[in-house]
Amino acid sequence: METVKYLLSEREMPEFWYNIVADLPVPLPTVLHPGTKQPVGPADLAPLFPMALILQEVSTERTIEIPDEVRSIYRQWRPTPLYRARRLEQALDTPAKIYYKYEGVSPAGSHKPNTAVAQAYYNKQEGVKRLVTETGAGQWGSSLAFAGALFDLEVLVYMVKVSFNHKPYRRALMETYGARVVASPSEETASGRAILAEHPDSTGSLGIAISEAVEVAVQRDDTRYALGSVLNHVLLHQTVIGQEAMVQLEQAGDYPDIIVGCTGGGSNFAGIAFPFIGAKMRGERDVRVVAVEPAACPSMTRGKYAYDYGDTAGMTPLVKMHTLGHTFVPSGFHAGGLRYHGMAPLVSHLLELGQIEATNVQQLETFAAGIQFARAEGILPAPEANHAVAAAINEALRCKEEGVSKTILFNLCGHGHFDMTAYTDYMAGTLKDFEYSSEEVAMALAGLPSVG
Amino acid sequence: METVKYLLSEREMPEFWYNIVADLPVPLPTVLHPGTKQPVGPADLAPLFPMALILQEVSTERTIEIPDEVRSIYRQWRPTPLYRARRLEQALDTPAKIYYKYEGVSPAGSHKPNTAVAQAYYNKQEGVKRLVTETGAGQWGSSLAFAGALFDLEVLVYMVKVSFNHKPYRRALMETYGARVVASPSEETASGRAILAEHPDSTGSLGIAISEAVEVAVQRDDTRYALGSVLNHVLLHQTVIGQEAMVQLEQAGDYPDIIVGCTGGGSNFAGIAFPFIGAKMRGERDVRVVAVEPAACPSMTRGKYAYDYGDTAGMTPLVKMHTLGHTFVPSGFHAGGLRYHGMAPLVSHLLELGQIEATNVQQLETFAAGIQFARAEGILPAPEANHAVAAAINEALRCKEEGVSKTILFNLCGHGHFDMTAYTDYMAGTLKDFEYSSEEVAMALAGLPSVG
Repeated sequence: METVKYLLSEREMPEFWYNIVADLPVPLPTVLHPGTKQPVGPADLAPLFPMALILQEVSTERTIEIPDEVRSIYRQWRPTPLYRARRLEQALDTPAKIYYKYEGVSPAGSHKPNTAVAQAYYNKQEGVKRLVTETGAGQWGSSLAFAGALFDLEVLVYMVKVSFNHKPYRRALMETYGARVVASPSEETASGRAILAEHPDSTGSLGIAISEAVEVAVQRDDTRYALGSVLNHVLLHQTVIGQEAMVQLEQAGDYPDIIVGCTGGGSNFAGIAFPFIGAKMRGERDVRVVAVEPAACPSMTRGKYAYDYGDTAGMTPLVKMHTLGHTFVPSGFHAGGLRYHGMAPLVSHLLELGQIEATNVQQLETFAAGIQFARAEGILPAPEANHAVAAAINEALRCKEEGVSKTILFNLCGHGHFDMTAYTDYMAGTLKDFEYSSEEVAMALAGLPSVG
Repeated sequence: METVKYLLSEREMPEFWYNIVADLPVPLPTVLHPGTKQPVGPADLAPLFPMALILQEVSTERTIEIPDEVRSIYRQWRPTPLYRARRLEQALDTPAKIYYKYEGVSPAGSHKPNTAVAQAYYNKQEGVKRLVTETGAGQWGSSLAFAGALFDLEVLVYMVKVSFNHKPYRRALMETYGARVVASPSEETASGRAILAEHPDSTGSLGIAISEAVEVAVQRDDTRYALGSVLNHVLLHQTVIGQEAMVQLEQAGDYPDIIVGCTGGGSNFAGIAFPFIGAKMRGERDVRVVAVEPAACPSMTRGKYAYDYGDTAGMTPLVKMHTLGHTFVPSGFHAGGLRYHGMAPLVSHLLELGQIEATNVQQLETFAAGIQFARAEGILPAPEANHAVAAAINEALRCKEEGVSKTILFNLCGHGHFDMTAYTDYMAGTLKDFEYSSEEVAMALAGLPSVG
């Protein structure tokens, strides 16, 4: 069975990030200050981010130029390959055509360096010496550690304690790049100490780790905060993925009928899908877009579209998004990168506008899909990416049932080399599916802040 | 600092493997039967390998065509990138130019699939249903498991027990691809049971695992043995690396003054170096070639050039090679892929002919080099590859001392994603250097078989 790979020359790598805000038929809801609950301005965000990123966060320009130095670093692994999954199609005996964009070729093994490098660059430009962030699965932390090493920036990572303990390989990778990694909740911050006082055995959450990182970031003038998903500028940086895929599919003489991406905070989904959704909103070409989230952290499929904090302690601005409530701590399923209580405001907005669909899948189904994919295509996906694999397989099987040949595109956002424990647990039969009761979801949502 | 990457189009991927035997000024010593100690013929090897591979093993043709189906699978990750290590050069402040070929982009993460895919293909062609092999670090085992999944072949891997216990992630990768992995020495074979009877706590060695795999392979007619290094046909399959590098350097307008490769059994070294050594032996272009081995397993720098078995039990043919003796069990240093008592006969022969040099490095130096490389270039090398990194850095620093700008090429044969424990141990200060006394080496060599 022939390998079908679409590469681009370096000259064909995008020169601009695509800003979907320019094509929205309805503008995004305003971001509110966590204290005053009034709209925030750029100055309010200055303690957290460099001004260049704040301006990107609020930009309405359709394209934003990628700085030469960032493009030069992208070139180490970009353009990333687009594959036709011929061996998987054969295994599924489907008439569908399945394409996947593979972002695991980056040094840190996922799509996250697309934004980590850009963020490190702009911080360096504005004289920042130290970046503070949080990480769950570790994909983001290791990407920022990688980018920090390239730009000679100190990197401090608050890592959700359960991952800190169960993913020593990820931690070692960050430390190899020179970052300092602290288990969260920690004794190093007031928010960490407050959690530990109440729950000494807390294994942490992304929301708590964000509180710690934000708290530390605002304390020192040479330090800024960096976020790996959710925000507009982060999603913006990921659009190189979809832009490249569009050119590669053109080479293949194809265009997707269905695009699938997994969603935690929304950045890899945005990366693959936004350029195509933009074309749809501009009336150029239709496409069905499916966001896949875990059944055990169903912000879009079971949460509420409401103003909420990005962190547990309520230190971040309030954004309107699909959320399970900022105090929600997802159960311990294995796709750590998808365990976030909220969803990117842009992705949430597109769901409200009917431009995308959302679905959720159970954990066991995702691992079965990942193993089938690995045996057919040779690449071992990250547990997060397995959600996209599972949904793409479901779409391909539906094509088989219906006897139609559709073109499916999904983003294989990272490899699972640092997540083998999850595969071992799955193969040993110790993993379980998980579903919250309606009461549990309602209870989590009861903690939403009242706004306006 | 600009990324400098040299890619090739798929059309520029080699169509032939390069067989260095055709250019040897002195032929290789004969291979001997382990029982009769008389020269072996192709028929003697038939219980172990398919005839196509046996014919490659003894071929004197300069080029051997790569089957279309193998090339098609290669295309998933080949041609691999060649990088100029600009950021490392800057960190070292050296006038040298450092290039590295990166083989970690393969699905299994190393150069090993170059031969695993070819071997699986030829076995499948000849009706084989099951492949048996051994693995130390797990790079080879996971590559054969990957190739087996593609060709629907059953794969059984005897994994050196110390790695089986300390590298659960590697084992999980092989199992994800569908292979069965057994800790060696095992109770499943006579050779395993013999070792366990004498040493119940044996943590195994590559030599023991080879004995087990060979024993199982010859028992069933639908089963063959597969080896990941040492043999001529295995080294042959790796020559795509050096052939690609030659074209990529031509694009760069450069030619190496020095080539560096790390050596365990010799296959990645052969892959990068043989095409260049061939050009040297044909009088076309000179180059200095350095093989780097661990100080804790110094077959070329401290062993003897003599006939020896490939395995501990003495079941394999006798080959003339640099060896520490087939009963030698290397100390537990971290580069499991370099812990073999012997060296490929072809590499040994070239060392005897003065076509290459051999050197060794201590473990701590290799990890320091690997971390420096990761922080500069972003890619985290496997512990095996760190030996090449360390030697390349040493050459670059010598250039700095001497004030000369030489061109250094090395093979970064794999990534270290499954070897993070080694990095953690290094950073925690628990790793040690190791050197055998002359008495210990002499004692190991006393076990060499007497031949002719």
